[in-house]
Amino acid sequence: MAKLSGFPEYLPSERIVEQQVLDHLRRTFELHGFANIETRAVEPVAELLRKGEIDKEVYAVRRLQAEGDSEKDQLALHFDLTVPFARYVVENSNDLDFPFRRYQIQKVWRGERPQQGRFREFTQADIDIVGRDSLPFHADVEVAQVMAEALAGLPVPPLTLQVNNRKVLEGFYLGVGATDPAAVMQVVDKLDKLPGDTIIELLRSDAGLTADQAAQCVAVAQICTPDASFVGQVRALGVEHPLLDEGLEELRQVIEGATAPEGVTVTADLRIARGLDYYTGTVFETRMAGYEHLGSICSGGRYDQLARDNRSTYPGVGISLGVSRLLAPLFADGLRADRSVPSAVLVALPNEESRSASDAVAQALRARGIATEVAPKPQKFGQQIRHAERRGIPFVWFPDTGEVKDIRSGEQKAADPATWTPPVDDLQPRLVTPTTEETTP
Amino acid sequence: MAKLSGFPEYLPSERIVEQQVLDHLRRTFELHGFANIETRAVEPVAELLRKGEIDKEVYAVRRLQAEGDSEKDQLALHFDLTVPFARYVVENSNDLDFPFRRYQIQKVWRGERPQQGRFREFTQADIDIVGRDSLPFHADVEVAQVMAEALAGLPVPPLTLQVNNRKVLEGFYLGVGATDPAAVMQVVDKLDKLPGDTIIELLRSDAGLTADQAAQCVAVAQICTPDASFVGQVRALGVEHPLLDEGLEELRQVIEGATAPEGVTVTADLRIARGLDYYTGTVFETRMAGYEHLGSICSGGRYDQLARDNRSTYPGVGISLGVSRLLAPLFADGLRADRSVPSAVLVALPNEESRSASDAVAQALRARGIATEVAPKPQKFGQQIRHAERRGIPFVWFPDTGEVKDIRSGEQKAADPATWTPPVDDLQPRLVTPTTEETTP
Repeated sequence: MAKLSGFPEYLPSERIVEQQVLDHLRRTFELHGFANIETRAVEPVAELLRKGEIDKEVYAVRRLQAEGDSEKDQLALHFDLTVPFARYVVENSNDLDFPFRRYQIQKVWRGERPQQGRFREFTQADIDIVGRDSLPFHADVEVAQVMAEALAGLPVPPLTLQVNNRKVLEGFYLGVGATDPAAVMQVVDKLDKLPGDTIIELLRSDAGLTADQAAQCVAVAQICTPDASFVGQVRALGVEHPLLDEGLEELRQVIEGATAPEGVTVTADLRIARGLDYYTGTVFETRMAGYEHLGSICSGGRYDQLARDNRSTYPGVGISLGVSRLLAPLFADGLRADRSVPSAVLVALPNEESRSASDAVAQALRARGIATEVAPKPQKFGQQIRHAERRGIPFVWFPDTGEVKDIRSGEQKAADPATWTPPVDDLQPRLVTPTTEETTP
Repeated sequence: MAKLSGFPEYLPSERIVEQQVLDHLRRTFELHGFANIETRAVEPVAELLRKGEIDKEVYAVRRLQAEGDSEKDQLALHFDLTVPFARYVVENSNDLDFPFRRYQIQKVWRGERPQQGRFREFTQADIDIVGRDSLPFHADVEVAQVMAEALAGLPVPPLTLQVNNRKVLEGFYLGVGATDPAAVMQVVDKLDKLPGDTIIELLRSDAGLTADQAAQCVAVAQICTPDASFVGQVRALGVEHPLLDEGLEELRQVIEGATAPEGVTVTADLRIARGLDYYTGTVFETRMAGYEHLGSICSGGRYDQLARDNRSTYPGVGISLGVSRLLAPLFADGLRADRSVPSAVLVALPNEESRSASDAVAQALRARGIATEVAPKPQKFGQQIRHAERRGIPFVWFPDTGEVKDIRSGEQKAADPATWTPPVDDLQPRLVTPTTEETTP
């Protein structure tokens, strides 16, 4: 059987890495009081296609024998967690308390041609805060802060959370005299892909700017600061507009409020526009050092109308972390857990008759939170030790002599299953990369 | 927008219940050293249809614009976790260590007509042990023991794990002189649905038994004991066969080995046959007291050929818990968490200028593992307290006076965010039912 391209499946020692990453995300989100929800995997196709440009990427779902099902009821797998969340909020608005702060960690599916870092099935971790009719601006600061804290605890290279605000860009473009700021934004969004000269030409041809106006729009996009000094740099360009003032003040609040824990840098990066998304203020992207080719691994922003029903609008702000996209290149570079099982201890089995004694040792250890398995067969002890070694289990317990052996060092000593505890670092599997393996002989 | 029948979605206070259930299952499985895996949501249709009888229940998956895709590559959502697991084992056999002990907790999909307790999308939690070419019988005992322990910690009514062994039934039927033991088993499997007289008639007409033979087969199915006394009761029927001896010995080992923690009864129940499944020895079903109409909520057994490739066979034994099926009736009866958020504390916000002081209190509490949120707006304190009350958050912290209030008792006292800790029972949301709410005024 061939593996299906675009549908990654992990070995147990990789899945442990993913579990630890997801556990850390969940712990961070919950410490900040975000509630978890899951939405169903399918949405009505009509609902998903409201975001027109992605229609060819959607996986339609039909019962194999579906003669009775009408076309209009056709379902499709969700391609993100935002559209289902918006529907969930409207559907349950009577039972939710607003502002509603939720996190959601689920698989999503896209029918794209698979390529490096792109999958057809992948895991996303989203946080959003949504209000009913209004949402205090501080929510923008909060999602940035919580996601920065979540990212900081991950076993990954340094990350840069890049923040901008659509009002800064739109206000600036209006201030230089652009008549179609959306057209300017769509051109500037290509700064990563096209040379500056081409951008300026496009700004003149497609967005109707003069050479001076175009140069101003490129200049503002090149401002990038790790603190609030971007405000002065924008001011120095001499452009004035009330929307620009509003945007600069909002962006300043996010940059100053989202304190950066170690491993994460928060920058005001005025190049970030998220051209195709319908954000109305704050926008977020995230780059990983050494993996810039992946693009943004964690993106989001403020929607003034995440959803609406016939009584209310639901403004929201959120960030979505591409967990699979983040992990895939690290797995490719050798990131693993040092075990393929949760077990810290293998209890040896001297012979089948003594199984209940081995079980008793295991249960005593488990009762104190030490993951333990019993050897499946009464093989020679050398084979039982190799059984542990192959799985990366650090300790083997010999119930006949009442001794426990650290099979890495060979040290063996008497121990009581009611009180013995492994070093705290051995309780859970540890993450290793080829590099750290080299440095820990 | 209408909800989709058969695709349940939970409110946050229900999802917390499900999370606690899944956390408990995971913790139990991992303490026993079971490794986690996830498999992709889709399998080739051809692969799924090898289990012929379920073809009309399968959801086919196709890219919406899939002109280029050939029929033979068609995919479908998996309808259980056993078929994908078998494929995973064969695909990764070079990288797995056998016996391979894994748990898997994922959604599965079936296109059934939705009805009470039946869903189109639902969560299953499976444990299996699979060997290469051979698997010690003790694995049967182990999966029963581990699942019994997992079930015992759930917030559900008493459960009965019913165990039988196909070899007991087949050996007994052969011993009474039946020529087609499979036919006998298929009739006896209907004992729950049809009166005993009808069963005896069917055994005579469909399975070719005499009246005496049929009576024997019904008699053995009525044996049900919480200990090994079933052996004597079977022997008392005077039937002899080597396969019966083997089955009785295996069943005795499971019943004696799977010690029943409080809340779970393990019984040898000779009525259990799992007629349509391809088990070869041990079989499991599970009933929940007061919810017998749900049928078995946790089932499984021994497959001598879970999977095979051109070098090896992979015998396995496993049990699958229907998490959604278990929880749905309990949710319908009012089981909830007492909060809709993880937060134990809401830090009040006296005014927007003091937000950094409120944030500092919250971060100090979070650093010690206390889930905390800050009020979104500087409303009157009465409104901020109601904000906490609506979400079930038990404590409100007032940073201006340095006091914390238990809003249930009204008790308020000075506290230091660096040292204060809520009662341990308030750290996490608690589960409540209408009954326990009545008894805790």
